[in-house]
Amino acid sequence: MGLIVQKFGGTSVGSAEKIQHAANRAIAEKQKGHDVVVVVSAMGKSTDALVNLAAEITSEPSKREMDMLLSTGEQVTISLLAMALQEKGYDAVSYTGWQAGVRTEAVHGNARITDIDITAIQAQLAEGRITVVAGFQGVTEDGGITTLGRGGSDTTAVALAAALGADKCDIYTDVPGVFTTDPRYVRSARKLAGISYDEMLELANLGAGVLHPRAVEFAKNYQVPLEVRSSTEHEAGTLIEEESSMEQNLIVRGIAFEDQITRVSVTGLTSGLTTLSTIFTALAKRNINVDIIIQTQADDGEADISFSVKTEDAAQTVAVLEEYKNALDYEKIETERKLAKVSIVGSGMVSNPGVAADMFAVLAEKNVQVKMVSTSEIKVSTVVSENDMVKAVEALHDAFELSKQPSAV
Amino acid sequence: MGLIVQKFGGTSVGSAEKIQHAANRAIAEKQKGHDVVVVVSAMGKSTDALVNLAAEITSEPSKREMDMLLSTGEQVTISLLAMALQEKGYDAVSYTGWQAGVRTEAVHGNARITDIDITAIQAQLAEGRITVVAGFQGVTEDGGITTLGRGGSDTTAVALAAALGADKCDIYTDVPGVFTTDPRYVRSARKLAGISYDEMLELANLGAGVLHPRAVEFAKNYQVPLEVRSSTEHEAGTLIEEESSMEQNLIVRGIAFEDQITRVSVTGLTSGLTTLSTIFTALAKRNINVDIIIQTQADDGEADISFSVKTEDAAQTVAVLEEYKNALDYEKIETERKLAKVSIVGSGMVSNPGVAADMFAVLAEKNVQVKMVSTSEIKVSTVVSENDMVKAVEALHDAFELSKQPSAV
Repeated sequence: MGLIVQKFGGTSVGSAEKIQHAANRAIAEKQKGHDVVVVVSAMGKSTDALVNLAAEITSEPSKREMDMLLSTGEQVTISLLAMALQEKGYDAVSYTGWQAGVRTEAVHGNARITDIDITAIQAQLAEGRITVVAGFQGVTEDGGITTLGRGGSDTTAVALAAALGADKCDIYTDVPGVFTTDPRYVRSARKLAGISYDEMLELANLGAGVLHPRAVEFAKNYQVPLEVRSSTEHEAGTLIEEESSMEQNLIVRGIAFEDQITRVSVTGLTSGLTTLSTIFTALAKRNINVDIIIQTQADDGEADISFSVKTEDAAQTVAVLEEYKNALDYEKIETERKLAKVSIVGSGMVSNPGVAADMFAVLAEKNVQVKMVSTSEIKVSTVVSENDMVKAVEALHDAFELSKQPSAV
Repeated sequence: MGLIVQKFGGTSVGSAEKIQHAANRAIAEKQKGHDVVVVVSAMGKSTDALVNLAAEITSEPSKREMDMLLSTGEQVTISLLAMALQEKGYDAVSYTGWQAGVRTEAVHGNARITDIDITAIQAQLAEGRITVVAGFQGVTEDGGITTLGRGGSDTTAVALAAALGADKCDIYTDVPGVFTTDPRYVRSARKLAGISYDEMLELANLGAGVLHPRAVEFAKNYQVPLEVRSSTEHEAGTLIEEESSMEQNLIVRGIAFEDQITRVSVTGLTSGLTTLSTIFTALAKRNINVDIIIQTQADDGEADISFSVKTEDAAQTVAVLEEYKNALDYEKIETERKLAKVSIVGSGMVSNPGVAADMFAVLAEKNVQVKMVSTSEIKVSTVVSENDMVKAVEALHDAFELSKQPSAV
């Protein structure tokens, strides 16, 4: 007998039928004797419909009013899911974010949870009710409705699980778990039984997409065991916890990749100590995310800087650099588009210094030219030509034997 | 410089374009220097769409969850209207029922407002903001979302106007005001410049339909001047206040009518004092509204009772009476369907005892047989054959000269 928090994303509650399925998942845990809290997103494309409504009124809606508008999406889902549970003979009650005590900072559109007052939910659980909570939303100290931004419902579920001291947080989604790499590109990609928070963070940041990095961070901070699993198939998903208890002998856990990367190179920089901060502060102000950064210093004191950005941000990046031409005093800017980032991730790398070398050897063998490199304790990222991306991922997936079931330690 | 509360119903905010029009109405009052509070309903058919969603899940949704679901409708409208006002360069803010401090009893689906905490709205008005409030909804002491049932947005607007001490409450709707009778049936029907609360209550109860009786009662109790006006045409509507300052010399102000009435007659009743209460308590328990009631006592102590119900309730009414056959000890039940109620309304009747007689004379002249009669101080209702309804209304409208503009007193 424990407490389970379940989260169903938009595609998993996208129709009346899917809501019935979600209800059955909650009931299955209830029947095992657990207390159950269910966190849901807005139904399927309903958020898009609301965004389109706003677009008919104004091209620049205020963030406060967008939060007011969008938060109705989850409110619809919670009421329907509670109805479905009641129809099946189970006592259930729905709560909006503010009713559930989800308090956030006073920032609209991308608020962070500051605190959860679990009094109301605990009272409902004590009465034996399945409690259905609207994800993605909260309330400020002044009673304003906020939304949590991308991945918000994942974060709500994990934060509630942490606050309630849940035994587990199950993230139901339209994929059956976390894979060694994207199965749409690599057929031999295999679902992982387990993965650590840190590895999941690297994969999430690298665009694996099943779980938002904020939610993983939250889970890591509060040591909430997560399971990513299919909302349609009845099978085990991928368990995410502090140290993956399974497959510990694996050095590389997965391969992430992302196309539409542009490398920007600034050469012949003569300015001094503040060059880097000048460039990256200016880009941050325009909300341009810079990923890999490489600086080289020549003997004559001149420096070259290369960094990667998403291709959609490339034009604006160049414009910002040109604006700062005088302050930076560089020779020229060059850009190379149609690049991709390919990364290997695994906590086993920390104690295996040769992994990066192995990676480069595999890529060289396949005639894949590496244009940039970045490493962390559990990740090696390379930038390659977009045309080489899938070939590189397949070769690495094979070389690190990711399609094989790991042997027990 | 005053405070105006405006209310826009579902058809008046049914599209982005109509929301823009509503915004313009609010701005027009703001430009005159008034503080403005706008109360809105859910957009057009959006409530029906939500009801259909629930019907896909269950045939018997709990009232609490239906309130949770339906209250999203107005929340969508308030955010869009606030965006429209901002887009036009005006400072605006939206509030749900709970944010606006609209407190109700803990009854779902048909709650009554118990109290309004106007602190938040007053603070926004003091900042010069147009404050947009979701009608039809409130919150219980425990933080549960409730809806007010039919006519709820009208009631929200009037209650807010009362609590804020507004100078006026404008009800924008898809008709230009209150008419002497239904213009769809009687071409010479004329829009009234003014009408008293009591007259409006009689007309509202009799199905004139522009304004819910609960809202009119509320306005009367708190002496809030109302104006019913067109959301599309720029012209004066109908002012509703304590004593109509205009047209005081009019004895009959309007004619209301309603078809699909059934007369139920119970004859040969021998039981005693409790007969009436037995019958009407039993019917009230089944939510059957009884309108006109006539009792006659014969010399032999036997009594006959006739009363009118909506035809849709007739079958159940008979079933209830048959259930109580032993307790009531009557001879037989008879029903006459296809009847209509035609009523003349006007506060001038109090001091003109001949009005009912005039009405009967007009009907007799047109060969309209009167089957039941009921009178109040400001109303005479008759029940006639459904086939005679329009003929009766036209004849009365002519006879009491309702199509003529009244002369000043």
